[in-house]
Amino acid sequence: MASNSFGTLFRITTWGESHGKAIGVVIDGCPAGLPISEDEINAELSLRQPGRTEYVTPRSEKDHAEILAGVFEGKTTGAPLSIVIFNRDADSSKYEPIKDLLRPGHANFTYLEKYGIFDYRGGGRSSARETACRVAAGAVAKKLLAHHGIQIVSYIQEIAGIAIEQPNLNSPDHLKNATLQSPIFCPDSHTTQKIIAKIEEVKKEGDSLGGIIETVGFYLPIGLGDPVYEKLEANLAKAMLSLPATKGFEIGSGFAATRMKGSEHNDGFTVDDAGKIITETNFAGGTLGGISTGMPLIFRVAFKPTSSIMKPQKTVHAHQKTPEEFKLPEGSRHDPCVTIRAVPIVEAMTALVLVDSLLMHHSSRL
Amino acid sequence: MASNSFGTLFRITTWGESHGKAIGVVIDGCPAGLPISEDEINAELSLRQPGRTEYVTPRSEKDHAEILAGVFEGKTTGAPLSIVIFNRDADSSKYEPIKDLLRPGHANFTYLEKYGIFDYRGGGRSSARETACRVAAGAVAKKLLAHHGIQIVSYIQEIAGIAIEQPNLNSPDHLKNATLQSPIFCPDSHTTQKIIAKIEEVKKEGDSLGGIIETVGFYLPIGLGDPVYEKLEANLAKAMLSLPATKGFEIGSGFAATRMKGSEHNDGFTVDDAGKIITETNFAGGTLGGISTGMPLIFRVAFKPTSSIMKPQKTVHAHQKTPEEFKLPEGSRHDPCVTIRAVPIVEAMTALVLVDSLLMHHSSRL
Amino acid sequence: MASNSFGTLFRITTWGESHGKAIGVVIDGCPAGLPISEDEINAELSLRQPGRTEYVTPRSEKDHAEILAGVFEGKTTGAPLSIVIFNRDADSSKYEPIKDLLRPGHANFTYLEKYGIFDYRGGGRSSARETACRVAAGAVAKKLLAHHGIQIVSYIQEIAGIAIEQPNLNSPDHLKNATLQSPIFCPDSHTTQKIIAKIEEVKKEGDSLGGIIETVGFYLPIGLGDPVYEKLEANLAKAMLSLPATKGFEIGSGFAATRMKGSEHNDGFTVDDAGKIITETNFAGGTLGGISTGMPLIFRVAFKPTSSIMKPQKTVHAHQKTPEEFKLPEGSRHDPCVTIRAVPIVEAMTALVLVDSLLMHHSSRL
Amino acid sequence: MASNSFGTLFRITTWGESHGKAIGVVIDGCPAGLPISEDEINAELSLRQPGRTEYVTPRSEKDHAEILAGVFEGKTTGAPLSIVIFNRDADSSKYEPIKDLLRPGHANFTYLEKYGIFDYRGGGRSSARETACRVAAGAVAKKLLAHHGIQIVSYIQEIAGIAIEQPNLNSPDHLKNATLQSPIFCPDSHTTQKIIAKIEEVKKEGDSLGGIIETVGFYLPIGLGDPVYEKLEANLAKAMLSLPATKGFEIGSGFAATRMKGSEHNDGFTVDDAGKIITETNFAGGTLGGISTGMPLIFRVAFKPTSSIMKPQKTVHAHQKTPEEFKLPEGSRHDPCVTIRAVPIVEAMTALVLVDSLLMHHSSRL
Repeated sequence: MASNSFGTLFRITTWGESHGKAIGVVIDGCPAGLPISEDEINAELSLRQPGRTEYVTPRSEKDHAEILAGVFEGKTTGAPLSIVIFNRDADSSKYEPIKDLLRPGHANFTYLEKYGIFDYRGGGRSSARETACRVAAGAVAKKLLAHHGIQIVSYIQEIAGIAIEQPNLNSPDHLKNATLQSPIFCPDSHTTQKIIAKIEEVKKEGDSLGGIIETVGFYLPIGLGDPVYEKLEANLAKAMLSLPATKGFEIGSGFAATRMKGSEHNDGFTVDDAGKIITETNFAGGTLGGISTGMPLIFRVAFKPTSSIMKPQKTVHAHQKTPEEFKLPEGSRHDPCVTIRAVPIVEAMTALVLVDSLLMHHSSRL
Repeated sequence: MASNSFGTLFRITTWGESHGKAIGVVIDGCPAGLPISEDEINAELSLRQPGRTEYVTPRSEKDHAEILAGVFEGKTTGAPLSIVIFNRDADSSKYEPIKDLLRPGHANFTYLEKYGIFDYRGGGRSSARETACRVAAGAVAKKLLAHHGIQIVSYIQEIAGIAIEQPNLNSPDHLKNATLQSPIFCPDSHTTQKIIAKIEEVKKEGDSLGGIIETVGFYLPIGLGDPVYEKLEANLAKAMLSLPATKGFEIGSGFAATRMKGSEHNDGFTVDDAGKIITETNFAGGTLGGISTGMPLIFRVAFKPTSSIMKPQKTVHAHQKTPEEFKLPEGSRHDPCVTIRAVPIVEAMTALVLVDSLLMHHSSRL
Repeated sequence: MASNSFGTLFRITTWGESHGKAIGVVIDGCPAGLPISEDEINAELSLRQPGRTEYVTPRSEKDHAEILAGVFEGKTTGAPLSIVIFNRDADSSKYEPIKDLLRPGHANFTYLEKYGIFDYRGGGRSSARETACRVAAGAVAKKLLAHHGIQIVSYIQEIAGIAIEQPNLNSPDHLKNATLQSPIFCPDSHTTQKIIAKIEEVKKEGDSLGGIIETVGFYLPIGLGDPVYEKLEANLAKAMLSLPATKGFEIGSGFAATRMKGSEHNDGFTVDDAGKIITETNFAGGTLGGISTGMPLIFRVAFKPTSSIMKPQKTVHAHQKTPEEFKLPEGSRHDPCVTIRAVPIVEAMTALVLVDSLLMHHSSRL
Repeated sequence: MASNSFGTLFRITTWGESHGKAIGVVIDGCPAGLPISEDEINAELSLRQPGRTEYVTPRSEKDHAEILAGVFEGKTTGAPLSIVIFNRDADSSKYEPIKDLLRPGHANFTYLEKYGIFDYRGGGRSSARETACRVAAGAVAKKLLAHHGIQIVSYIQEIAGIAIEQPNLNSPDHLKNATLQSPIFCPDSHTTQKIIAKIEEVKKEGDSLGGIIETVGFYLPIGLGDPVYEKLEANLAKAMLSLPATKGFEIGSGFAATRMKGSEHNDGFTVDDAGKIITETNFAGGTLGGISTGMPLIFRVAFKPTSSIMKPQKTVHAHQKTPEEFKLPEGSRHDPCVTIRAVPIVEAMTALVLVDSLLMHHSSRL
């Protein structure tokens, strides 16, 4: 199946293996006239970069995105954008000895069974490296959203059970800044410290942690999302569960809603000072019937603990089916909590969903 | 946007308003040669029916699906199936007085804003009545899955915080029977009693409850789902969040994974007595890299408490923006926990996702 | 494959067999607020009707389209329109004796081979009866185009080599009226007489004729159609070749262009009295680079002679592979020139392509 | 709109401007296990190359395709293939003086109106250079078709009215070789000479010619193509009319069918020596009801004379709307008959349509 594309009117197609020559993304359907530069894209990419802080994997190369097509004199032309990131740090020889062992928590088992062939070097196409392309495309989508006054902020809400309080949603800029000031993208500095301590502890054990990313969309117009099968939250859920290592998605009250009564959960309507209809609470999380209400869009994504750990694990040989011990090669990079690096990726995917809904929205009325 | 279709190779398109002449579904892409009858479809529909037990809304009409096209001499022909359910119980006059009030927890606000027009009678297109069409289509999908040896069982896992233990997954037939024997689709009889008591209590208050539905897919071949954007769980998440009243989705360990360590969460590989590669645990929930592992597929969906309650609620007039009290008309049907009736719907949507993945899977290798 | 849909943003899905219970179409993506009635749809259907004049098949039933969903208080709501036409005249017993004979020029051979099953009654899904649904959907599309000032006129340009001169394109209304006044949809009355004489002659022989339909689109805005794979003429060509009995499509100068020189064929640009940029000639047929120029859109479609003839034909038995003579049963309806009834169908498909392009066009610029 | 993709299961997305850094194609949905090399792709590209013979434009650079992803150890892996061709010969300064003049027969007018911006250097995205990417993708598609025993041969059937007889279709290899031996891809050597003389004559005048390309598909299985809207000829027509400079498409008897009677045109069924059902004639051109019959697939595509000519032409200034004379800069490359270079492109597009139909065909029956 042609499964490497996302979106309908603003459609991205990503390609490339983690240890191949390059990875890239084609963005088709971006309206003409949007100013966009390689620098803006690379600024977003640097947030996802391994090695941004000491709490993530110390991979040293720096991704550099190049725009090969679709921009003329600094603006989009309506033609597809092609963005490529050449791979630099691709010594894959160390994967040789373990190439026939099934990696617990990884996809080499299912890829091998599905395709009969697997590019074992660094995970091939199943590697999280693919998400760099999502971030690059997301940078373009965010620029387009900004043009329409929409802002998105994603941040760490919880790691290993250590959670922040619901942040103040009065100022997206303030929330964004607080997030960027934290080496782990957590807008609360006290919680940041606690989480960092936990990560350091687990890192020493060669083990890993999971966590939850929360995203808030600000200033969405009323009306984004389409009834029945293209509800805004349906497309967000798909976007998020398409990310590696995700195990769950919830919007607004989420799973907690299941323990509330209707009289508690229903958000009553009222009119604000500006004469705009709003809801008094926002358990809905910003949509009703799958369509944006104009209230902040709020959802959370659950990430499992990083599958790559330094401890030995029980496995089998892919072909001989003999029991084996799986151990990452000495000197392997080890990211004890991939959730952190996933923050800009979640933000990018959110942008892609919103942009597509926005372009769709044009044709809802005469 | 053309947003009333779901699926790619096995594609359904639903239509119809809750108080219009009829609702229906067109199923396009069903392989030729599948035996299917109206009786099989109606048997599935009766499970979703309001009035199946006293714990759901006492709406009295019985849905009857008719196949208008696509079946010849008892078998599918490769032509699209058209299934129609005529609406019988459609007195919508009682909605007149409240037609301009925004209904808390409902979509009339967002539909009005998006389209400038709203078929207020019973919720129009945003009504859960549309899900009858999903169940009808799901009956065809389940028949096709059965042909390939795949079974799905959905059941109530938790209502208002009252949860069952993880059921025994050794026998899908046993689990299915236990589920069907419960008036609330809960495979544990003790929990069934506790939940029924809770529902009766809340019903008297005119209030409502939410809950969680768990689904298990049995005997999936290895290889369903496609890399990157068409991961099996991504499509399941989209399918589930496209259902009315859903607030969350999680697969396998789900949100609980965020509090586990990698060494606990990674499912070790081993070989079973039949020589088949399996995992010792199944925190993954049946997929790796978005592709089915051959282990049971397990996921959960969170439903908010029913939005329609008998208590008065705070709202505003859609056009005059004046504060108003919203109260359902006397004699309105009241379903205190829609989660229960959603069980066959979740099962149907699961079937639709799996059938599409199965047909896609044919083209993955030479 | 899900192959019964056409269009992306304005998407139709048709269903139904010629001798089944009903045929129908779901229109998804029609903007809200468009006034549309069953009468308007039935007026279009009556043009396609067999028995409109004596020069087409004398089938007597009259199709009546019913809108089952998507219209509220006379206007579209953004919900899918469901239009159904119940079949009335469906005695299929006469097809029994020939059900295992391959029909020359028909699809029963390929359907049987592809699906292993064939609804032989009147051609099943491969019947031209399906096109009634296209006309019904086209009526909605034309209403939407009219709202944007766009008009389409299709007419007979040539039958059996008897052709009209290029009609005057100064007034779409005049061209439309001249076309409707002709019993064979040919805007020239003299040619109409000659063609009618030819049809009567061939009808007596039990034989059939083919012909060419020309279509002109008036007042298209500049900019419809999308670069590379969604060129306006590419989608028109697909739409036309999806019609039964079509053998060719050409736009503007068409095949005649292959015998012209570039200096003759290139349409020079100039400015008209209103200060609008136009071309002096219109060999292009209304598009450049697949995008509408604002000049009239002109294309032609070739139809083969009707496959159903009253003469005996050489064939084989589908299963026994024995040589057989194929003869339509006594009393079969015989339409000596289906091209005529195809005129409103071509117009409808043109409308569907243009509406989709128009909705797409909204998202081309910031 | 996302309009730079073609195909559903085997989907290509092309990108790049004629004078940008590079052009490329992503192929998504290619089954795993197909052996493919850069050499095979470059061999196809060299056929499309300007400068292959003296009868086409003398552009000197040689395109070199690089596979950046999707192939591992010489075989496809199920991951998307990314093929890139870097642009070398991109001096666009000579286009500066004419950048604001509307080019007769070109797309700069419609692009400017649609997008408000135009990459004027060499035609940008509207340039025929994009078709190199189609040829590269077509090389992969042809390899996959060859695996299934299907062969395609495209060739010049007519230039400026000088046509060949219908070639012998008994041997695809023989037809292919005769075609490749002709500097203008015309399988008849006598006609080749006449056409070359005509091209030389017109070239001296600074003028250009159009022509017709015929394509034959050999050994298609019965059953390719899908009913109603995804007929094989509908997708072929779309593919062909998506090519620059095309004005028409016809299958089998094509426009000539409109002058035949049904008794002449209907292809009678018979059984060949091998016991296979065939038709005695093949006016249908290899399909019935849009589905392949197993007979040779035959269609023709009309190309207008090359729009770029060396003669001065009448035009206007895009912004000032003043009358101007358009003249290509001295030293511009001039290809007097682009139809010739289009032969491998038509073959490639045919392959893309057939591969997609083939993969779709898997899901037609239980």
